[in-house]
Amino acid sequence: MEKKEKLYDGKSKTLYATDKQDVLLLEFKDDIASLDASKKGKIKNKGSANSKISAQIFTYLSSYNVKTHFIQESGDKGLFIKKLEPILIRVLMRNIAVGDLCERFDLEEGTELSSPILEMYLKNDDLKNPPINEYHAYSLQIATQEEIKQMSKNALKINAVLKSFFHRRKLKLIDFTVEFGKNQDEIFVADEISPDTFTVLDTESDTLYDKTFYLKNLSKSEKIYAELLDKMAE
Amino acid sequence: MEKKEKLYDGKSKTLYATDKQDVLLLEFKDDIASLDASKKGKIKNKGSANSKISAQIFTYLSSYNVKTHFIQESGDKGLFIKKLEPILIRVLMRNIAVGDLCERFDLEEGTELSSPILEMYLKNDDLKNPPINEYHAYSLQIATQEEIKQMSKNALKINAVLKSFFHRRKLKLIDFTVEFGKNQDEIFVADEISPDTFTVLDTESDTLYDKTFYLKNLSKSEKIYAELLDKMAE
Repeated sequence: MEKKEKLYDGKSKTLYATDKQDVLLLEFKDDIASLDASKKGKIKNKGSANSKISAQIFTYLSSYNVKTHFIQESGDKGLFIKKLEPILIRVLMRNIAVGDLCERFDLEEGTELSSPILEMYLKNDDLKNPPINEYHAYSLQIATQEEIKQMSKNALKINAVLKSFFHRRKLKLIDFTVEFGKNQDEIFVADEISPDTFTVLDTESDTLYDKTFYLKNLSKSEKIYAELLDKMAE
Repeated sequence: MEKKEKLYDGKSKTLYATDKQDVLLLEFKDDIASLDASKKGKIKNKGSANSKISAQIFTYLSSYNVKTHFIQESGDKGLFIKKLEPILIRVLMRNIAVGDLCERFDLEEGTELSSPILEMYLKNDDLKNPPINEYHAYSLQIATQEEIKQMSKNALKINAVLKSFFHRRKLKLIDFTVEFGKNQDEIFVADEISPDTFTVLDTESDTLYDKTFYLKNLSKSEKIYAELLDKMAE
């Protein structure tokens, strides 16, 4: 497959057309930015690490019959992916309460949740990515009932699979976001699953690795991304 | 049934014990307050109007097999109600987008929704009544999966029933909140359903009647509550 014209230049990834109609190329950059882009930076080799980690996790999920957009790696920091119709919802799965959830419900930082919490957010920077529920999704024509059901089912399954994947690597999966796209009536995991989208606790060093940490510790983070990449491969 | 000791003094209602173990008395006051109690006032005869309107709507809902906590009226501004275990969720049903929903999704004020939107809020003034979804409810032990299912089903049914009830009275049901309580495994509509909890558009005068309107127009509102009470009885 061959890289063709640039289709979209995002905060941390660039999307290209390829010579195949139904295949795109997702190239990962070293840039990192908070969701509202108020904090930005660069971490050397992050693009490559995220590309490889995503490829590995997508492959792992496939072995559990979770469909993803991943086709194959392209060089050091790219993924050939299936072209999908995007669904403008970001699903956040939480196992441990941290940050805004603790504030919202007056929970102690690090509270183990009795069951995972799934939250949906509209992907719309102009509207500041507001939280939505299934009724907003149907009524505002963001997704159909069946799509919401499939996305929720998939997100819960991915959470269960990844929790034990990380546990074996001495990492505790705190939370992660996942995005989806559709092709006909089928739902596929899209975007990336990488340190930019998951938060893990290194149970040996007791350090919480998330985007906020990386943005605050840009120079330190090169090593952490490399370490996480190594751990994934174990 | 006989009124006994005061159990709880709320912003707009007072709850009393009665001589019957499983029956309480809900007395309506003329006081009105915004959800966060930052705006307050009194509207003459509001308590009586709300008590009567609630009694009428509860009776009407019963005829559609929706179970409510209403037993019978007590004097001019009281309802004898079934004692329930409260569920700390306020359900908001929306047919027309107004206010905060329009801001959140950049919708035009008064947009007719293609299907009703159900939202759930935690009843907790200290936490500022945050929005919750079913996963927050299970995980934080606010309600069980079955309770959420029953509450949602009931709220959607009540909305359908009330929409046509109001339509026949030349009122358009914009949105309303409803609360529930449980007794064993059964879910009952609780609290009140009154002008304090629903927003209607008077299609003849094109005026939106909601709590914000009443709080802004305290002296005018006595007449409006009386008019609404009359319309209900039609």
